[in-house]
Amino acid sequence: MTRKAKNILFIMFDQLRYDYLSCTGHPSLNTPHLDALAAKGVRFSHCYVQSPICGASRMSFYTGRYVHSHGAAWNNFPLKVGEVTLGDHLRERGMDSWLIGKTHMSVDQAGMDRLGISRDGVIGARVAECGFDVFLRDDGLWGEGPQGFYDKRRSPYNEYLKGQGYEAENPWQHNANAGVDEDGGVASGWFMRHADKPANIKEEDSETPWLTGQAIEFIQTQYANSAGPWMCHLSYIKPHWPYIVPAPYHDMYTAEDVLPVVRSDGELHNPHPVYEQFMQNEIGQTFSKPGVREKVIPAYMGLIKQADDQMGRLFNWLEESGHMEDTMIVVTSDHGDYLGDHWMGEKDLFHDPSVRVPLIIYDPSPEADATRGTVCSALVESIDLAATFVDLAGSDVPDHVIEGRSLLPLLYGQNPKAWREYVVSEYDYSATPEAAALGLDPKQARLFMLADKDWKFIFADGGFRPLLFDLKNDPKELNDLGADPGHAEVINMFMKRLSEWARRPSQRTTVSNETLLKKRDGSAADVGIFIGVFDERELPYEVIEKTIRRR
Amino acid sequence: MTRKAKNILFIMFDQLRYDYLSCTGHPSLNTPHLDALAAKGVRFSHCYVQSPICGASRMSFYTGRYVHSHGAAWNNFPLKVGEVTLGDHLRERGMDSWLIGKTHMSVDQAGMDRLGISRDGVIGARVAECGFDVFLRDDGLWGEGPQGFYDKRRSPYNEYLKGQGYEAENPWQHNANAGVDEDGGVASGWFMRHADKPANIKEEDSETPWLTGQAIEFIQTQYANSAGPWMCHLSYIKPHWPYIVPAPYHDMYTAEDVLPVVRSDGELHNPHPVYEQFMQNEIGQTFSKPGVREKVIPAYMGLIKQADDQMGRLFNWLEESGHMEDTMIVVTSDHGDYLGDHWMGEKDLFHDPSVRVPLIIYDPSPEADATRGTVCSALVESIDLAATFVDLAGSDVPDHVIEGRSLLPLLYGQNPKAWREYVVSEYDYSATPEAAALGLDPKQARLFMLADKDWKFIFADGGFRPLLFDLKNDPKELNDLGADPGHAEVINMFMKRLSEWARRPSQRTTVSNETLLKKRDGSAADVGIFIGVFDERELPYEVIEKTIRRR
Repeated sequence: MTRKAKNILFIMFDQLRYDYLSCTGHPSLNTPHLDALAAKGVRFSHCYVQSPICGASRMSFYTGRYVHSHGAAWNNFPLKVGEVTLGDHLRERGMDSWLIGKTHMSVDQAGMDRLGISRDGVIGARVAECGFDVFLRDDGLWGEGPQGFYDKRRSPYNEYLKGQGYEAENPWQHNANAGVDEDGGVASGWFMRHADKPANIKEEDSETPWLTGQAIEFIQTQYANSAGPWMCHLSYIKPHWPYIVPAPYHDMYTAEDVLPVVRSDGELHNPHPVYEQFMQNEIGQTFSKPGVREKVIPAYMGLIKQADDQMGRLFNWLEESGHMEDTMIVVTSDHGDYLGDHWMGEKDLFHDPSVRVPLIIYDPSPEADATRGTVCSALVESIDLAATFVDLAGSDVPDHVIEGRSLLPLLYGQNPKAWREYVVSEYDYSATPEAAALGLDPKQARLFMLADKDWKFIFADGGFRPLLFDLKNDPKELNDLGADPGHAEVINMFMKRLSEWARRPSQRTTVSNETLLKKRDGSAADVGIFIGVFDERELPYEVIEKTIRRR
Repeated sequence: MTRKAKNILFIMFDQLRYDYLSCTGHPSLNTPHLDALAAKGVRFSHCYVQSPICGASRMSFYTGRYVHSHGAAWNNFPLKVGEVTLGDHLRERGMDSWLIGKTHMSVDQAGMDRLGISRDGVIGARVAECGFDVFLRDDGLWGEGPQGFYDKRRSPYNEYLKGQGYEAENPWQHNANAGVDEDGGVASGWFMRHADKPANIKEEDSETPWLTGQAIEFIQTQYANSAGPWMCHLSYIKPHWPYIVPAPYHDMYTAEDVLPVVRSDGELHNPHPVYEQFMQNEIGQTFSKPGVREKVIPAYMGLIKQADDQMGRLFNWLEESGHMEDTMIVVTSDHGDYLGDHWMGEKDLFHDPSVRVPLIIYDPSPEADATRGTVCSALVESIDLAATFVDLAGSDVPDHVIEGRSLLPLLYGQNPKAWREYVVSEYDYSATPEAAALGLDPKQARLFMLADKDWKFIFADGGFRPLLFDLKNDPKELNDLGADPGHAEVINMFMKRLSEWARRPSQRTTVSNETLLKKRDGSAADVGIFIGVFDERELPYEVIEKTIRRR
């Protein structure tokens, strides 16, 4: 077989921090399989997500467009019908687009109804699934409370577990994400004190191995059917909370493996009002209590170790079956996890632990030989993947629709002209208690991060001052300079960039830039339109006689 | 009949300047019928269009959204499928939405194909017609050249003329928009030297009377069928060029009626580079030649006089048939016409003759009695009409989709809180020779105007300085202060406003602001999601026992 990236395996983890792999610098979390992939490909050290929250971030991955462009700005905000997806772009170019796992896609049912699009048809089914054909959809959060399930769909994972003999009504909740307490009761992984217990499930039945098996089955089927080129989005829920993992991963790491917390008392002193609100929420408070990180982070690391082992299983199988020769493999995450850094838990804000993600791309093509095992420090955004995949599928990137840039030139060791000078990430917290506490109108509760290698700037709408971090001198982002008059010039530069970015023609999606350039040469006279001509005798005889003066 | 605005007659002229009616101040162009409407309703003195060009301006009228939001930024840029139209909003609220005349809508065929929407169905037909049901569609430009027609549709107007016995292949071109020259040949109205000739057509067959007749027929049919509430968009092509009008209107005005040109030699001295390019195009050059305005403007005035007479015919008929009692009547234009002012012809830029339009709204409802005959000087944008119509149809304006504001409170003499502080208009010239001459990338060839009562600020992307006019001291906009360091503060204020405006969440259209506010109160625990809880014993017993700890 010729080495050539024909297919794409686009692997996403959920809530995986950029610095929790051994190849990205973690001192005790050994991830040999992902490290090996990085050694065969390129690791991008400065990859940022378009929003540090699942739904919004993913809609950007799946459209190649900023959140401000696609509008699905928070979890469960539907992606509006009409947004062109990665799947649309790829299918147009002869490549299928398959989903295995999570997307966090919420359907714009009103939009589908308005346009008479039914989910019963293949077009409607794809619209409802964010452009993917579904091999398996499982968003991986089967929480259930007094008002029913968080996710109203059927759960393929729960069905699998029931098939394996797990007897609970909701084995996701009671086995995969819970241990057993001292009295034999349910020790739910939702509650962090249980994070050190083993999940009450056989390791091979837990989410990550289960989904890996699905991926192998999918790829086998594709080859068995001699399918055309495909992109497969293999999208794991883990290491996302609940923080609990089955044996042997539950006690593989201890408090000694927990990295020192990155926070300072200075951060608590007169903080930016928006940051202050998020620090004060329950997750931030809990992670800031003594002992909590030591309890939780080993489980988080165990989940990542398990994920790496599953990557080993998958990559070995690909190698043995020869598919490593024709498959581009991409590994990334939808956002990170504060894990107590900066007095925060979860994600939401723009410190590196939240907004920066790992990105490894392996391309089997000989063109990529030049860069194998290298680290690329170009400023990369998650929207670049859609552009990369379209480029790989064999066409110019439609840059009037996709706002990212293809990474192929970087993979091929070329030096692309005028690479971006800054990355942008957004956070829309209009539906949160934090916005309520700040008394903000839904249109104001929005944050915009712009960052380059020197500075990270965060604009907070609603009349607040911005935040600013000096990444060169304060790489841990502990000292917010946003209120410092001495940095007015930097702030002005970023305000200018923010305006430039916000003005971009992101909705001019029905006319390509190439078409616009061609139109400049067009002559209206060719179709009988004469604007500003005083005397037809100034025009060529034929133009007039054949049309305007013809009876 | 109770006086109550049940239906809406939304009349639009094309290229009608704000100051070419007697009620808006023209000294010799007497327009008694529009004046009478203004005396029964409210005239808005500061109404600005969202873009000074037909297509983009109209897509904003028909969606209630800025050009930057809907993306159909220039003539014949398709409006993308998924944009919600005025027709969609009104039908949802029980009001039909009909078209008679011009829209300049261009179909997003690729988008329709991608979503499997056929024009054969009623939904697809409406998508293709910008949300209207079509009583009659005629964009009124039937220019024909060596490469065929500018507009590839069938022309109902040409069909009408042929039915009336006009024998030319293209009677729009050869009769309605041409006179007869000294040798009996075609004196096309495209060429301005013929503007003083009478069009070679019976006055009652020319475009404006023909379309008025269609409107009367439409309204008769609606009442005959006891139709429910309707909005009818009666959309004339005139007084848009070609500048030629049938007798008796062709010689009703003379050079003596032509207003003094508004321009100065100072404008030619070191002008802003973008302005300079537009000044240098053929229409600007032609209008700046001696005698051209005196030839053309009387024809333009004749077209307006004819339009006013047709308004008289229509309003009289409405009065006599009793429909004046239950019909809101709106009269406006899609943009103005420079007519040689500022060394310019056509529209495109943001001086008042181009970007400002007349707006008269008559509402028969008793609530509007308080304001009859008044002039409202609030800053109004053309997107406000969609909001007004939705409000009239009986519902809150969905302000996560429609960006305009209802004018009903102003019509009812109320004092709406926090009215807008500035209007915005845009011009995308990425497809023009001017952009080519300036060497601009398609993403850069864009202008943004922000104006309040004191200042008009124009930002030119692509690295240019802005333009600035002091409207208080220089109401004729002859002195561009954009390069004056003394006005840096004003410019900064507008740069801030531009950024604020550009950042607005215009694509967050699938979640209402009301829903966002409600979500703030929602509890994730209700659906079994617990983020940041260390110990379940901190939670109410029922929450835990009924869900998480249930087997």
